[in-house]
Amino acid sequence: MAMSMAATHARGKKLNDAIFTASGAAKKAIAEYGIEKVTDATIGSMMDDNGKIACIPAMEKVYRSLPMSDIISYAPISGLPAYLETVIDLVFCDQKPDGYTAAVATAGGTGAIHHAIANYAEKGNAILTGDWYWGTYGVIANEMGCRLETYKLFNDKGGFNLDAFVHKASELLAKQDSLLFIINSPAHNPTGFALSGDEWDGVIAFAKEKADEGKKITIVVDIAYIDYAGEKNEVRSFMRKFGGLSHNILTLFSFSMSKGYTMYGQRTGALVALSACKGVIDEFNQIMKYSSRAAWSNINRGAMTLLTEMSKDKTVYAQFEKERDALYQMIRGRAKVFMDEAEACGLKAVPYKAGFFLSVPTDDPSAVCDKLHDDLIFAVPLKLGVRIAACSVPSAKMHGVAGKVKADMDAIKA
Amino acid sequence: MAMSMAATHARGKKLNDAIFTASGAAKKAIAEYGIEKVTDATIGSMMDDNGKIACIPAMEKVYRSLPMSDIISYAPISGLPAYLETVIDLVFCDQKPDGYTAAVATAGGTGAIHHAIANYAEKGNAILTGDWYWGTYGVIANEMGCRLETYKLFNDKGGFNLDAFVHKASELLAKQDSLLFIINSPAHNPTGFALSGDEWDGVIAFAKEKADEGKKITIVVDIAYIDYAGEKNEVRSFMRKFGGLSHNILTLFSFSMSKGYTMYGQRTGALVALSACKGVIDEFNQIMKYSSRAAWSNINRGAMTLLTEMSKDKTVYAQFEKERDALYQMIRGRAKVFMDEAEACGLKAVPYKAGFFLSVPTDDPSAVCDKLHDDLIFAVPLKLGVRIAACSVPSAKMHGVAGKVKADMDAIKA
Repeated sequence: MAMSMAATHARGKKLNDAIFTASGAAKKAIAEYGIEKVTDATIGSMMDDNGKIACIPAMEKVYRSLPMSDIISYAPISGLPAYLETVIDLVFCDQKPDGYTAAVATAGGTGAIHHAIANYAEKGNAILTGDWYWGTYGVIANEMGCRLETYKLFNDKGGFNLDAFVHKASELLAKQDSLLFIINSPAHNPTGFALSGDEWDGVIAFAKEKADEGKKITIVVDIAYIDYAGEKNEVRSFMRKFGGLSHNILTLFSFSMSKGYTMYGQRTGALVALSACKGVIDEFNQIMKYSSRAAWSNINRGAMTLLTEMSKDKTVYAQFEKERDALYQMIRGRAKVFMDEAEACGLKAVPYKAGFFLSVPTDDPSAVCDKLHDDLIFAVPLKLGVRIAACSVPSAKMHGVAGKVKADMDAIKA
Repeated sequence: MAMSMAATHARGKKLNDAIFTASGAAKKAIAEYGIEKVTDATIGSMMDDNGKIACIPAMEKVYRSLPMSDIISYAPISGLPAYLETVIDLVFCDQKPDGYTAAVATAGGTGAIHHAIANYAEKGNAILTGDWYWGTYGVIANEMGCRLETYKLFNDKGGFNLDAFVHKASELLAKQDSLLFIINSPAHNPTGFALSGDEWDGVIAFAKEKADEGKKITIVVDIAYIDYAGEKNEVRSFMRKFGGLSHNILTLFSFSMSKGYTMYGQRTGALVALSACKGVIDEFNQIMKYSSRAAWSNINRGAMTLLTEMSKDKTVYAQFEKERDALYQMIRGRAKVFMDEAEACGLKAVPYKAGFFLSVPTDDPSAVCDKLHDDLIFAVPLKLGVRIAACSVPSAKMHGVAGKVKADMDAIKA
């Protein structure tokens, strides 16, 4: 065996990052054949129709106006107070649930999930999410000494599989005193799915039932893509449902500036907590601050200031929202091309509602993705299917992709 | 007992941040009495003589020239390859030890220490540092399920207490198969101390001895303040000593852009590994990437690009170093005022060599700091003494501080 210096728990860790691997293959093809010949559906950032990363102009203008002192100074450990207030306002809009709230600044949405699992999941326990999921949930769970388990996300009608969720969560809670589960909705990565109000009601009813039995339930709502899901208050209407729950249900919202503000590389987000119990929120503030000090000390002050500055000027923010909406419409158009053609050619994609990605279930995602390379199409092979990035493939290039996927899947099956 | 939703291991965590508390008191006094009346010796950033955060002009110029795409795009999980190469060059200058090296981008120096402890310290084990130390080491150790233990850093002659180090480390290694210890040198926070070449030899001889007995030794060298310690190759001459050690000694250097590049708020640093064994470095790359994915996904691309761009142009970098040297000279001047006056009035400060901070040992640091408030002087009470920030107190204000500290200590003792 090779020499290892790692601590026992860290030995053998290896990141299998399908996304970065697929993206690397696309980049290689672009270098060889030219960008106009290649369809790169691997990128998880919003790209304009010329293949350049989209930067929302109103955001850029405010960012460029920040003095260096805002960019280079340390921030308080938990985040700039004005930023945290702004985040809470932006997360809930007019749909703020009853209860106590607090927020902590994090290194993007990843940092928010990190802090949630680090503090609310027991070591050795399972955390839970649907079987179509962002792989990083599993990485964070492992790193924290937990493990990720899944339930079948979709029922036969393409809706949320409440039965599977309840069954799996009950099974875990028969062995665990607490359960943290993550639901990425709306604009679910990697499928573009969203839970309906009724589906959320089912989830919350289950949480209540278990809380009444004395279990501690932490609901993590990952809203990384919510700004590309539709009218802001409409897509947030489910949030009010989390008000007035029992003291042993904690709801955490994972907020990110990456997508909604096209600030991916600045690594700025937040974890927002909601509870009917002030003590739970006080505890959140204490333990989150401790985790922040241990992981990154404090978060990018410039990016936090940007958000506060931009949102406090109503005219500027309205302009920003208008420009962001144009990106949302662009993604919608691209996804529509794919979904329309999928329907026309009989390709069964996962029901897409909104968001950066759409997915096609298949038994052998890697084989399909490999075969797509023959047509210089690059997508990400997930466990359950192929992920296509509507955020980064121009409409013109999206035409024909569904047909190719269908043909390749048929060829592999044959 | 108040309602707690936290996981067992996270319950009751509370950050006692003496630095932020002291800094808050100073800010309050400034608001009440005006900045010209207050001496704020709590701030850990380089401030100019007008009390404004110092931003190195050559750095600012390059940063302001970066296109938005560099600022907003995601970076690779382990960091931009060019950044990692640059960091390795900057960490070692012409003093690169023999061996294999690698680097991973981290959220400042804090993130580097986080990644080191997360991966190279066994859960439940002690990690070790001197008894004058940056409190965050203890926070990170606790958060990772370890604990921090200390040895007496100074011997009677004000030198490195090798005996105490060897004694304590041996004691721990009688119970542990591995040991990670942190040495912050040169320009030690909080005392401005640095190990001499001979003192490093003693540390390394001990590591070799224990490695020969089959123990795994991880040496973390925290060089957060190295750019304010003297001529760059001179202050790095100890680094060559880490070449050619056995396979079960791993040396990790914690690099930060915060101080050396006045980029505190951008949260960008790196952990650099050195080993005689390629397998150990390969393992480092794998497990660090995993930890990065779990903690923050990737690091600030703009700040990484800045470093690469700035250092690849020799003229620009020379200009940058010249400007940074002016800040170093400014700190030296401020520290000299304090140390000269301390000697004159018989105040026994910890031997200061270089760096942002100097310290005065006392039995009741809080009482001394409180009493200093009467003179509108604000310093940080540590466990073993009072920390004075030479990086942030202008020379004009530094005059008299040593005398006040002496008088207050005498008054408390009386």
